[in-house]
Amino acid sequence: MPPIHRQLVDRVAIGRYQEEVADPGAIRAFVAEFISVLIFVFAGQGSGLAFGKLTHGADTTPSGLVAIAIAHGLALFVGVAISANISGGHVNPAVTFGAFVGGNITLLRAIFYIIAQLLGAVVACFLLSFSTGGLAITGCSLSAGLSVWNAFVFEIVMTFGLVYTVYATAIDPKKGEVGTIAPLAIGLIVGANILVGGPFTGAAMNPAVAFGPSLVGWDWGNHWIYWAGPLIGGGLAGAIYELVFINRSHDPLPGSDF
Amino acid sequence: MPPIHRQLVDRVAIGRYQEEVADPGAIRAFVAEFISVLIFVFAGQGSGLAFGKLTHGADTTPSGLVAIAIAHGLALFVGVAISANISGGHVNPAVTFGAFVGGNITLLRAIFYIIAQLLGAVVACFLLSFSTGGLAITGCSLSAGLSVWNAFVFEIVMTFGLVYTVYATAIDPKKGEVGTIAPLAIGLIVGANILVGGPFTGAAMNPAVAFGPSLVGWDWGNHWIYWAGPLIGGGLAGAIYELVFINRSHDPLPGSDF
Amino acid sequence: MPPIHRQLVDRVAIGRYQEEVADPGAIRAFVAEFISVLIFVFAGQGSGLAFGKLTHGADTTPSGLVAIAIAHGLALFVGVAISANISGGHVNPAVTFGAFVGGNITLLRAIFYIIAQLLGAVVACFLLSFSTGGLAITGCSLSAGLSVWNAFVFEIVMTFGLVYTVYATAIDPKKGEVGTIAPLAIGLIVGANILVGGPFTGAAMNPAVAFGPSLVGWDWGNHWIYWAGPLIGGGLAGAIYELVFINRSHDPLPGSDF
Amino acid sequence: MPPIHRQLVDRVAIGRYQEEVADPGAIRAFVAEFISVLIFVFAGQGSGLAFGKLTHGADTTPSGLVAIAIAHGLALFVGVAISANISGGHVNPAVTFGAFVGGNITLLRAIFYIIAQLLGAVVACFLLSFSTGGLAITGCSLSAGLSVWNAFVFEIVMTFGLVYTVYATAIDPKKGEVGTIAPLAIGLIVGANILVGGPFTGAAMNPAVAFGPSLVGWDWGNHWIYWAGPLIGGGLAGAIYELVFINRSHDPLPGSDF
Repeated sequence: MPPIHRQLVDRVAIGRYQEEVADPGAIRAFVAEFISVLIFVFAGQGSGLAFGKLTHGADTTPSGLVAIAIAHGLALFVGVAISANISGGHVNPAVTFGAFVGGNITLLRAIFYIIAQLLGAVVACFLLSFSTGGLAITGCSLSAGLSVWNAFVFEIVMTFGLVYTVYATAIDPKKGEVGTIAPLAIGLIVGANILVGGPFTGAAMNPAVAFGPSLVGWDWGNHWIYWAGPLIGGGLAGAIYELVFINRSHDPLPGSDF
Repeated sequence: MPPIHRQLVDRVAIGRYQEEVADPGAIRAFVAEFISVLIFVFAGQGSGLAFGKLTHGADTTPSGLVAIAIAHGLALFVGVAISANISGGHVNPAVTFGAFVGGNITLLRAIFYIIAQLLGAVVACFLLSFSTGGLAITGCSLSAGLSVWNAFVFEIVMTFGLVYTVYATAIDPKKGEVGTIAPLAIGLIVGANILVGGPFTGAAMNPAVAFGPSLVGWDWGNHWIYWAGPLIGGGLAGAIYELVFINRSHDPLPGSDF
Repeated sequence: MPPIHRQLVDRVAIGRYQEEVADPGAIRAFVAEFISVLIFVFAGQGSGLAFGKLTHGADTTPSGLVAIAIAHGLALFVGVAISANISGGHVNPAVTFGAFVGGNITLLRAIFYIIAQLLGAVVACFLLSFSTGGLAITGCSLSAGLSVWNAFVFEIVMTFGLVYTVYATAIDPKKGEVGTIAPLAIGLIVGANILVGGPFTGAAMNPAVAFGPSLVGWDWGNHWIYWAGPLIGGGLAGAIYELVFINRSHDPLPGSDF
Repeated sequence: MPPIHRQLVDRVAIGRYQEEVADPGAIRAFVAEFISVLIFVFAGQGSGLAFGKLTHGADTTPSGLVAIAIAHGLALFVGVAISANISGGHVNPAVTFGAFVGGNITLLRAIFYIIAQLLGAVVACFLLSFSTGGLAITGCSLSAGLSVWNAFVFEIVMTFGLVYTVYATAIDPKKGEVGTIAPLAIGLIVGANILVGGPFTGAAMNPAVAFGPSLVGWDWGNHWIYWAGPLIGGGLAGAIYELVFINRSHDPLPGSDF
């Protein structure tokens, strides 16, 4: 394999992301991530408050879970769609970390993104608190009968699926059209996973989703799980995807595009 | 930055919209907005009547909220999709106002659009009233425990998200393919936000959605909130998006499309 | 307007449809419509049987309505998607009739399509009857308190929205990319309208959807409504869309595609 | 019809698939199928466990069915989307078998795929068992009052629809853009069919979906139905689609693409 060819492919592979790193107007990416997370967390966290409002604080029912999963899935689809062309549409520190592990974003820019994401989640929770007339904001928590290790693995598996999806649909240079399928797939895998993990861990898959409510509601129980699980799952996905699918794809396959 | 280049970009930025302003057949845009709002409000408002029919007028439950949110989200997706190539697919006075604030539609044409939208909503409510055998049409209202200022901010935040989405997916010249993602994102952010705001303010995000039922059911309590909130949220989104993302995007970035 | 230009545009406008009319292998279109309706009616009608199975025959609840609306919406999306490139993806006699009224399909071919659609619906109902261990198949019916004229108008309005959507996303030559948005919009407007009309008229919007269960369950009460309403609504949509949007679009607009 | 032309078309028809058969790095396809099935089964099977957790093991309700259908539909959409460009996005032994029957994959590669799919389902179930703190994993089973032949036909019909959809949207050379519509249609027809068949047979349509839980929960009652039904339905779809739509499409139609 000629080194020149390889460099070329590498450049194509991470082009969309790298070019933003070089962008002097990184403030735009910051604002885009901030607003996307704000919209996503407002809808996601808010749908839980709406359920509580309708049921006067009852335990979550299956239809409540459907409502919460749909709200997260649709709002994340939108959050990714509206920032995809500006910041790459991460909307999640675990995605940013997974992109960093795979070499698709610089450390500096990653930190910048994560600050914007956390800020967006916090502002969303404050706005929700005011808009709902002061309903209590509560962080993610484990269901009865679940050990922290169960929850930890749960978050790892779910976030692995999410960040693997980001790689396969938005970062991999062999992907097809990105425009529509990447935001849809990213949003909807989160919707699907909430239908699984919601009743067990809260199914954050995203440290910002846990951080905003924890800060505004000052509720830090088991908070580390919602950082460690998603970051490990996301980092694992980035490492595996790069290793298996991107590095090895440089063989000059007959009929392939490069 | 050369002024010529800038003008060119500006022309591209608002091309799709401007060209319709110059269109002598503005009546087509009027009809398109009228029918899109009619279809949207018929499904959205009607889903509430259907819930009442099934439950003999019970309070909204979580599964009722899911039904209403899905009906609005899907019907708005369709409403935008079917008018996107004719009128730009506003289907909402707050979107039209946001487009006006950002300089993407003329005042005259905006007024024209809003009249079509209000008419569509009113006709939809009359058709619903007849088709359902005379069920009462009721306007949006605030839940118990919510102040008008809570509701006002709620509508501002939700409509900000909606109109920001319109800008990012349908107006911004840096957006990717528009065809599918813009109508989907616009419809589904409304679906997601109804899962949040529905039990609190009714989650109109659209003065026409509030106006049609208010007129047909003659129910004007707190009606101003459903104009002021969406128009402020939509105008804010238009102003911010233009300022942050469109004006500054003229730097000749390496690797960008222009 | 030069007549030559006009003929050219007309040919483009109805090209995709006309070309199939000339196809000697019309049998493929027949099979495609037959299978698409079979898949659609199997899922749609079957979702009602599934609700009855789970609830031991209870009255429809809001979550049952959501299940039925989603099943119809998703299955129709698929039914249109899988036949779009073969038969144009009608999957509904009212769509075929609306296409005929607008001059986009010949009478002979329209009759051919409708026979295939009715056959598909009947076979789907027989398969459902056997697969479910002999559950009763029942046709659409009016809810208590609804006059036939209410229901008639209800079906007209809903089918108008459906066939208008078909025109705007799949037939209009000014439409954008068809591939994804047309099947999605067509399927999802049916899903949305079922959330409105389901508890009132059954929300057929499609004579085949009413005919299959009526024949297999031998239940013909008010059956005419489910032919007359959808055909009038669909025909009206075809006539209006052609008149307002397609005929007049021949002005050589600056910046338009032709 | 000139034989040369025919061979050319055949090569185009099965190009995307054949080229992967020739790929020395078949391991990538293996990993892609493994991970896609893992993500799909984790969400699908897990949504049933989540329902049990919320309701303390109650019988499935309509809103539970909606949750389970949505989880399967969305996760399969994602599973297909993330492997489409690597392995063709089968995610199901019945799809692989259907592709084999139609001549679109070699026997060796098909066996390879099916092993990866079964492994993915098994690992997903082990991960679920641990993550949920040891909840019991149970296989598909027939509802009361359903004979094995009813269930057998049910699975045949539903899987026929699924694999026919795969052919029409992902394999047929006459299909339009694949990128978004194929994964969506494939995922959502499964979602729709679960809303029908879920309460009767469990609506597997996929031997891996039945095999993983059966192995981990050691529950093999009527297991043959979930292999025989889907394989027959999928094989039938492959044979019919090739026969009717692909073989005969070689006539040089005026206006067609080849």
